[in-house]
Amino acid sequence: MDFIGANILSVGQFERADIDRIFAVADTMGPYARREKVTRVLEGAILGNMFLEPSTRTRLSFGAAFNLLGGTVRETVGITASAMAKGESLYDTARVLSGYSDVICMRHPQAGSVAEFAAASRVPVVNGGDGANEHPTQALLDLYTIRKELSGNGRALDDFRIAMIGDLKHGRTVHSLCKLLCLFKKVHLVFVSPPELAMPQELVEQLRAVGHTVEVTDQLENSISKVDIVYSTRIQEERFASQEEANLYRGRFRLNREIFTRYAQPNTVIMHPLPRDSRAEANELDTDLNEHPSLAIFRQTDNGLLVRMALFAMLLGVEDQVDEYSYPVRWQSRRNPA
Amino acid sequence: MDFIGANILSVGQFERADIDRIFAVADTMGPYARREKVTRVLEGAILGNMFLEPSTRTRLSFGAAFNLLGGTVRETVGITASAMAKGESLYDTARVLSGYSDVICMRHPQAGSVAEFAAASRVPVVNGGDGANEHPTQALLDLYTIRKELSGNGRALDDFRIAMIGDLKHGRTVHSLCKLLCLFKKVHLVFVSPPELAMPQELVEQLRAVGHTVEVTDQLENSISKVDIVYSTRIQEERFASQEEANLYRGRFRLNREIFTRYAQPNTVIMHPLPRDSRAEANELDTDLNEHPSLAIFRQTDNGLLVRMALFAMLLGVEDQVDEYSYPVRWQSRRNPA
Amino acid sequence: MDFIGANILSVGQFERADIDRIFAVADTMGPYARREKVTRVLEGAILGNMFLEPSTRTRLSFGAAFNLLGGTVRETVGITASAMAKGESLYDTARVLSGYSDVICMRHPQAGSVAEFAAASRVPVVNGGDGANEHPTQALLDLYTIRKELSGNGRALDDFRIAMIGDLKHGRTVHSLCKLLCLFKKVHLVFVSPPELAMPQELVEQLRAVGHTVEVTDQLENSISKVDIVYSTRIQEERFASQEEANLYRGRFRLNREIFTRYAQPNTVIMHPLPRDSRAEANELDTDLNEHPSLAIFRQTDNGLLVRMALFAMLLGVEDQVDEYSYPVRWQSRRNPA
Repeated sequence: MDFIGANILSVGQFERADIDRIFAVADTMGPYARREKVTRVLEGAILGNMFLEPSTRTRLSFGAAFNLLGGTVRETVGITASAMAKGESLYDTARVLSGYSDVICMRHPQAGSVAEFAAASRVPVVNGGDGANEHPTQALLDLYTIRKELSGNGRALDDFRIAMIGDLKHGRTVHSLCKLLCLFKKVHLVFVSPPELAMPQELVEQLRAVGHTVEVTDQLENSISKVDIVYSTRIQEERFASQEEANLYRGRFRLNREIFTRYAQPNTVIMHPLPRDSRAEANELDTDLNEHPSLAIFRQTDNGLLVRMALFAMLLGVEDQVDEYSYPVRWQSRRNPA
Repeated sequence: MDFIGANILSVGQFERADIDRIFAVADTMGPYARREKVTRVLEGAILGNMFLEPSTRTRLSFGAAFNLLGGTVRETVGITASAMAKGESLYDTARVLSGYSDVICMRHPQAGSVAEFAAASRVPVVNGGDGANEHPTQALLDLYTIRKELSGNGRALDDFRIAMIGDLKHGRTVHSLCKLLCLFKKVHLVFVSPPELAMPQELVEQLRAVGHTVEVTDQLENSISKVDIVYSTRIQEERFASQEEANLYRGRFRLNREIFTRYAQPNTVIMHPLPRDSRAEANELDTDLNEHPSLAIFRQTDNGLLVRMALFAMLLGVEDQVDEYSYPVRWQSRRNPA
Repeated sequence: MDFIGANILSVGQFERADIDRIFAVADTMGPYARREKVTRVLEGAILGNMFLEPSTRTRLSFGAAFNLLGGTVRETVGITASAMAKGESLYDTARVLSGYSDVICMRHPQAGSVAEFAAASRVPVVNGGDGANEHPTQALLDLYTIRKELSGNGRALDDFRIAMIGDLKHGRTVHSLCKLLCLFKKVHLVFVSPPELAMPQELVEQLRAVGHTVEVTDQLENSISKVDIVYSTRIQEERFASQEEANLYRGRFRLNREIFTRYAQPNTVIMHPLPRDSRAEANELDTDLNEHPSLAIFRQTDNGLLVRMALFAMLLGVEDQVDEYSYPVRWQSRRNPA
């Protein structure tokens, strides 16, 4: 695809070559994200960061990514802050607000709304999550993280094994990741969930149609023993059909240090889309793994910066000029790695 | 008036020469707003953008205008975010916050509050709307749009015809626009509204006193046939004295493609202060005119940037140095015109 | 202490030499805060300004201070805007968000929360107020103001007299100020409050232990007659044990022009942490002193900028390079002094 001036709305819009290009550009952003260099390449450009549904993490990641390229951010948070509450159409909002920005990121609670907004916008739009529908930059940063973590282990996106754990029926992030994985070769997937929260059959078939192998199970321990990546997600108790079902499965998908140490290979990588519920009763990734070197969840969010910087640079056609406008960092950063 | 260090509080503070100067400066801002050039002239300056009442459009327009001159924006949204909720006076707020900015824009729900704030502020204050009272930059951008659209049609602010439609009794924007029009010559005005929502007689007399001609009617179709500009505003049903009255007039002030095509001259320009209620039942400008070249409503909001950039440059005394600190745009903008 | 990469969490972490260094750096920030010069020294650096409890004044002061050094600000306001509402731990929030910033300021309603956040953060954290616990930059700006005002009167931090008035039992600002004063010599303190809202005995003893003299009273008039600084704070009526007690003391700690003129020495300085309740019925500093040259409350907030600029510069190790990256102001500021 031609990235300059394009909208980023769905993982479905990417071909394999697009992903490769985004990741190659993301690789060049490391020195800027680590504050080894600063660039002014987007000086004067304005990002309209519109979060009509709250999301501190994603909002700040988009904003910081734009700042790290030298651009400026104008922000809108919450639907009540908007004339849209008074019956204004997405069309009008998009026509007007696109006059104030060079690129717009939008999160919106309704599926399809960001695409509708983008159709009327006069500048490129990046989908920052539209309800249960899509959140393409999350899928890209997940895939980019897998690629990076695998390369440390001598493997690659075209030949690896991943277990996805949790509520695979409703999980937007795992669905999008599966769609992206269809662009690659020789992936072995293990889907670990209670039967009633299983990965939709349609996605399983898509994965098998491109030649991937898929295993479906409700056993956590065995599954993590034979994969390179464990991608954990939350199961909310109210998702179960009955309280009996919830009681039956409570804690059985909670990955903790004991289980990981006992069953997983030492260099298996643990991922999670975040936020996670850190309370003891949650069906979630346990905090006793916080200091474990396999835990990649904060490297994941750091990678989000790189991927978003890459996209902004490509949408505005400056990915080859970032270094040209760079200069040394003046302050002494004591940043610790994730 | 001397713009450097001045407050912009009311359309009543301007003389004809002031308007001419603002518009001349606004004309020079086009290349920056269209991203053909970038300027650093206000680098290091801080706008305090205080919206104690929500307004996405106006807030972003002020903020983007300041950014486009190279300045930085610090923003406050919502009265609850403020110590003013705990009994702090506008005086204290102004004394303190003016220490943190070089210029302040304020929207406040109470009439007169922005002038009170400005009296205590140590830096210039721009009224971004104080309740039912004033919103001077909206009036300026409306007038600037009329001037620009007329010039395309070979006419000028000193000789043109305008129809104002809708709730002319309560409409802050049409009142302010009428006051500004008193500074010009040979304007013919047609006020189209239900009798009980008519333009206040005082304003009608002011307009006639300076030599303008004024027509008052409740007939939409005839009115738009003989004007250069149609300025449409909303009538909210609850503004009518009775439900019978509302029923009588429902839809009679809604301008749509059929009526416009049939009655208006082809180069008549359609304006609206926005936001508009795009729902079918609203007494409002119809969405079936969205693609019509006469529809200037998004050119209007784009012009808002130019007028606000001009004001900021003049209040800070840099209107002649914008180009001196300019440089070429580094990114590839695919911005579409409004 | 070594400021580079450090957290600023509590006044208890400072030694005398640290205070002296901060104030020496703050002194160099004047030309930038007064807009006589602009600096780019922190260009490219990002402040994460996280106010999980509203505070317009402090939030804007931190943000503007960072901007005045050339840095960029990404802001979060309100706990609802955060995933922390969904059970995310401070640990996770800190690990993630510290990837997006070079330094973080945090205000949080719970005592101890900012220190917990800082422990997990990968970049320096400044406590912007954690509930009833600490607000160290307020204490620093108060002390810096005392030093500056005294020097105009030929006195110094190592030999002066101060009266603190109001609710000294619950007042976080006066407690922190007392702790800092323990680092200096020969301070005479007069604590003026109703007996049940008196300064905690522990603090009184700490002050005496370092050699300061302390007087405790409920008489406003006599107290202000023999001091260099009057530090006024609010008494909220609901703090009294009974309504009778409230009635007894109502207005007896409200400092106004008549009392000040009659009892205080002419060059006595009036301070207040702000916000103050300007309503007539408040037990507070009266507005009839607003124009009095002794009133330093807005010089105090202006000084807040200097102290915060100094801290940011020191945490990022650029305090000696601010001038190197400076250039003249391009715009014509008509800023009035506080």
